[in-house]
Amino acid sequence: MATKKKQAVKKDAAVKVALLGFGTVGSSVARVLAKQRFQGIELTQIFNRNVARKRASDAAKWVPGSVKWTENVDEILRSDVDVVIELTGGLNPTESWIRKALASGKSVVTANKQLIAYRGASLQRLATEHHVHLVHGAAVAGGVPVIPGILQGLGGDRVTRLSGIVNGTCNYILSRMESGADYATVLADAQQLGYAEADPSADVDGYDARAKLCILSRIAMHAELDPDAVATQTISTVEAVDFSYAKELNSTIRQISRAQVEGSLVHARVAPMLVPLASPLAWSHGTLNMVVASGEFGGDVVFSGHGAGGEPTAVAVVSDLLAVAQGCKTVELPVRKRQVTGDFMAPHYLRFVVDDRPGIVSGISGALAKVSVNIDSLLQRRGYPKHRLPFVVTTEACLTSTVEKALVSIAKMDCMLERPLCLQMLETEDKGE
Amino acid sequence: MATKKKQAVKKDAAVKVALLGFGTVGSSVARVLAKQRFQGIELTQIFNRNVARKRASDAAKWVPGSVKWTENVDEILRSDVDVVIELTGGLNPTESWIRKALASGKSVVTANKQLIAYRGASLQRLATEHHVHLVHGAAVAGGVPVIPGILQGLGGDRVTRLSGIVNGTCNYILSRMESGADYATVLADAQQLGYAEADPSADVDGYDARAKLCILSRIAMHAELDPDAVATQTISTVEAVDFSYAKELNSTIRQISRAQVEGSLVHARVAPMLVPLASPLAWSHGTLNMVVASGEFGGDVVFSGHGAGGEPTAVAVVSDLLAVAQGCKTVELPVRKRQVTGDFMAPHYLRFVVDDRPGIVSGISGALAKVSVNIDSLLQRRGYPKHRLPFVVTTEACLTSTVEKALVSIAKMDCMLERPLCLQMLETEDKGE
Repeated sequence: MATKKKQAVKKDAAVKVALLGFGTVGSSVARVLAKQRFQGIELTQIFNRNVARKRASDAAKWVPGSVKWTENVDEILRSDVDVVIELTGGLNPTESWIRKALASGKSVVTANKQLIAYRGASLQRLATEHHVHLVHGAAVAGGVPVIPGILQGLGGDRVTRLSGIVNGTCNYILSRMESGADYATVLADAQQLGYAEADPSADVDGYDARAKLCILSRIAMHAELDPDAVATQTISTVEAVDFSYAKELNSTIRQISRAQVEGSLVHARVAPMLVPLASPLAWSHGTLNMVVASGEFGGDVVFSGHGAGGEPTAVAVVSDLLAVAQGCKTVELPVRKRQVTGDFMAPHYLRFVVDDRPGIVSGISGALAKVSVNIDSLLQRRGYPKHRLPFVVTTEACLTSTVEKALVSIAKMDCMLERPLCLQMLETEDKGE
Repeated sequence: MATKKKQAVKKDAAVKVALLGFGTVGSSVARVLAKQRFQGIELTQIFNRNVARKRASDAAKWVPGSVKWTENVDEILRSDVDVVIELTGGLNPTESWIRKALASGKSVVTANKQLIAYRGASLQRLATEHHVHLVHGAAVAGGVPVIPGILQGLGGDRVTRLSGIVNGTCNYILSRMESGADYATVLADAQQLGYAEADPSADVDGYDARAKLCILSRIAMHAELDPDAVATQTISTVEAVDFSYAKELNSTIRQISRAQVEGSLVHARVAPMLVPLASPLAWSHGTLNMVVASGEFGGDVVFSGHGAGGEPTAVAVVSDLLAVAQGCKTVELPVRKRQVTGDFMAPHYLRFVVDDRPGIVSGISGALAKVSVNIDSLLQRRGYPKHRLPFVVTTEACLTSTVEKALVSIAKMDCMLERPLCLQMLETEDKGE
């Protein structure tokens, strides 16, 4: 169809760009822009606290001398820049900055997953109202073009299922534990390498991944979820022994973010789960991210790559910037608010640590039978002390809420030394003909 | 930035769509459109030969009664449709139809890889001249959003390397041979299943994949290649024994399409290659497609899924249609014509079949030494007859053209019963931290 009316792309003057935040990603964005020298894009302003320190940093050598540095964000929001790249993160005061930018006719490129998960729909409406762009390809899986790929390439499909590894920190921890290391050691390493924060809760307890899952649900399944309503489960209770048992089940353990549409309900959960070794999700090692989108018509589509880090995230930001500068909109399809449940019909992995005595298996199987959950297998490896014996029961497919009911009474058994660990088990994905 | 001037998207009237070709993909497009009922899109005309037979087919039940069927393509090209979806394939007369459509202000969505590989740049110019869209997301890897993912999500990166499995037929054949079947049997099966044509040459000899590699090179590396200049090598000379030897080398064999920028030169080749089992490319079984794009800033990005089949390809077509109907342009970056060579610096796998006698290894190693190629390993499995002995030499990294020089003289040795097989060996991809 004709697009004779020109889009509002400046043909001659360069698109003026301001950067909010000159940390790891911000400085990488400046470096990529300097190296790539895209025509028609000019970095004009940078906002950060303590500008003097930032300007003196090594990273600042990629910033053109013409750039104006400021500690006052309002200078930028009042200026004539065309695009604001927001890399400061968090909800407050960032949301108000982005609202001001959009309302004053500036397009916004952001990597802020929390903001987009919680306020994306409302900010998108504001952008549309003011005929500007709001793009956030870097908010999920950094350098992996999951968001543009889904928006522009899967709009024709009906995506009913998503499963992904979208938190590199957890994947680093769990894939190292797979090789025998224990949680505390690997977490300490991750903190030293800069993969994990001093307070690792946002990563290991699933809040970071939950925000990303909500963004993915909106763009892929057109389902608006309340992030706070999405069930999360920490990876910090997974132990080395779980990887041994997982291996016996031809599986490994990953922090999986999954969502599945069923009528007007969305099942969604971020948790450590058993992943079959044959699943692409088991291939993801280290900080790699991976998202599998399953469509009614196209089957499973896998995206994988570096989900975090300065330069991969900068690729997503700069790609978004190019799209905005060239006036490229993305496909929009109607989005609906959806109720969410963490319940899935799945086989479950239950790991108990007991002070061994007669009657334990009978107690556990009795409690499961009471809620009509069938046991699929019982695994007990040799070599553990009887007074602190870890063993595993796997169930046939049942609702997570059902098995959790049984676990309430099982946890009260005298012999239980720890809270039982309950993990959903993923089934093998579609693997092609 | 502001986009206040409306793009030429009809707000009220639906976008009128004509379908050229009602085969497997065309009928799937009609079915997906009927099931998805996207607002603002109306299928109005279908062109095909033998309309009476098509209309009577089961597939036609998804076509709205209001659709006008025709055997005369000019009726469509002269009509007021907004978008033409071209699924007839081939260069002639399709190219002239697409030119007419674009020149008369119609946008074109096509899955035609040959046309886009050979004429993409020129057709794109025509589209731009007439302010219409030309999109071809379905031309590479069907339902896998490689093209939109790269265009919209990797524009900020500098992609220097591509490697992919983009021909499902070859992947089906080679991944079944991996399990012990021989080429002729698997090819016959593939033909019966409809994965391979009666004349399989376009697939097995690499011409189909070559067109796709050229398209990927253009969008990812901004390098325009002459498809006819890209080296191809048939998979039909790969034998069961090669999979045994590959396994000893912790590898398997896949038809790989690869390209790599080096200054103003592009190394490009479509050939069966040894792929390390640790590489994502080895995970692709059956008809699955996979593309790995390696960027200077973002590292390796992997796309995988169903590359062919009616419904996956229809997803790509309908997603493109949505983008066109909503007036979404894609990012455009300057493209340059590039010289191409099939030469790569790589380790090579050489398999010989000989009538065993003394002096063979010395003859082969002498010929390799003469061109300064170092032998990395020599593999000879037990259990083969001496008078028809397959054995393998792997080389250290060297140019393909150099090792081929040595093979010319080696092939002339009396003991050689077959032309030696020479395969490039891929190195393990970037696997994350």
